[in-house]
Amino acid sequence: MKRVRFRDPAGSTRSGEWTNGEIHFANDSYDPDEVEILAPTDPSKIVCVGLNYADHAAERNKDLPDRPLLFLKPPNAVASHGDTITLPTGKERIDHEAELGIVIEEQCRNVAEEDAMDVIAGFTCADDISNRDDQDKEQNWVRGKAFDNSCPLGPVMATPDEVPEDAAVRLRVNGELRQESSRDQFIFSVPELIAEITTYLTLEPGDVVITGTPAGVAPLSDGDTVEVEIEGIGTLSHDVRIS
Amino acid sequence: MKRVRFRDPAGSTRSGEWTNGEIHFANDSYDPDEVEILAPTDPSKIVCVGLNYADHAAERNKDLPDRPLLFLKPPNAVASHGDTITLPTGKERIDHEAELGIVIEEQCRNVAEEDAMDVIAGFTCADDISNRDDQDKEQNWVRGKAFDNSCPLGPVMATPDEVPEDAAVRLRVNGELRQESSRDQFIFSVPELIAEITTYLTLEPGDVVITGTPAGVAPLSDGDTVEVEIEGIGTLSHDVRIS
Repeated sequence: MKRVRFRDPAGSTRSGEWTNGEIHFANDSYDPDEVEILAPTDPSKIVCVGLNYADHAAERNKDLPDRPLLFLKPPNAVASHGDTITLPTGKERIDHEAELGIVIEEQCRNVAEEDAMDVIAGFTCADDISNRDDQDKEQNWVRGKAFDNSCPLGPVMATPDEVPEDAAVRLRVNGELRQESSRDQFIFSVPELIAEITTYLTLEPGDVVITGTPAGVAPLSDGDTVEVEIEGIGTLSHDVRIS
Repeated sequence: MKRVRFRDPAGSTRSGEWTNGEIHFANDSYDPDEVEILAPTDPSKIVCVGLNYADHAAERNKDLPDRPLLFLKPPNAVASHGDTITLPTGKERIDHEAELGIVIEEQCRNVAEEDAMDVIAGFTCADDISNRDDQDKEQNWVRGKAFDNSCPLGPVMATPDEVPEDAAVRLRVNGELRQESSRDQFIFSVPELIAEITTYLTLEPGDVVITGTPAGVAPLSDGDTVEVEIEGIGTLSHDVRIS
């Protein structure tokens, strides 16, 4: 099943089902192009994983981590499918990063790897937009990773059964393929990530864990259209404004 | 004025006024010892500042930053006055850090230094509890600084007029003075911090900025009682459990 949060024509926020290219809520059906799609969740925090694909670690000249490299994006980072994202100005390089996002189902702490799938509501597409100018100069990636709109999510949340273990992850800019890999290339698996994070932090319902990006990250320009496509979920699309 | 969030005897969450050692809400008055004091705000994020006192940078063998060192604590970090804080086990060193907390009044972005005081609702006391074992080994301080209960806040929020520019900041463990300094020793002032943070992140009503700690940080032990006292605000007290 695929769930979608949207604003209906009356302005109410709804959580509907996305089937056969239509959105269904109660007795009503909507064309996805005729409603405002919202981020599939309203997280209290986004816990992010860096360097979780070997090819991306190599392109950033980083050693592979011996445990997950974690960082945080607060709620101000969330953006939605269809948004035009306004990015910080005056930077040399702000990159796209296609990522699989995990949406948490229940409040949890100290989750064992073998129980991790029980606390997951589903998966979504994410773009971990990264301001390299500042990221490469600061200890904690706040200016670099936590700025407004730095985490478009969507368009839907797909339940785990919809998303293959080797789901393809692709990113296109203006229709041109820039990143392509698969979930089975993760260095740390989804259960390993959930177990490690919840050793320290309680996750809340709706919280998101984004799982790292494969090789192919590259700078965004004003006017670009970015698409993150993950097999079994769909395609998150957002535009970029830098001005 | 000092405002306090608390749970009244009927279990309702209230925001009252703290005057003459009593809490007032509507027509009722309460003894602070007879109600459950809550954190003075329910932030969507806590933006934290590191190395904002020269003496603390020296004790941690760090150079002074040329712009504010920022990091993040998510809502799971919040704890309240009177709580017994359960900390991660098996660590060599988890330190206290007394800090002045700024509570944000209105949604804001790109705030000029000269306008910063207009977006501030008030100040509170904070303990930026720091797990050095992990902090010193990770790029982003997530295991080190963002774990559950790592940010007790309270007991009240005092409006800015209550807190002198040179307000004393003190921390005691089991009654023994460990940290003592003053707000006028900040490397980056409150307006400079608000301006820098809001260049990148929108702050929401109730969000908190904690402003760095002076020298004297030291390890906590199971059973310790910590008091953070800031002139014009009051004394935040919490106990520590490591087991």
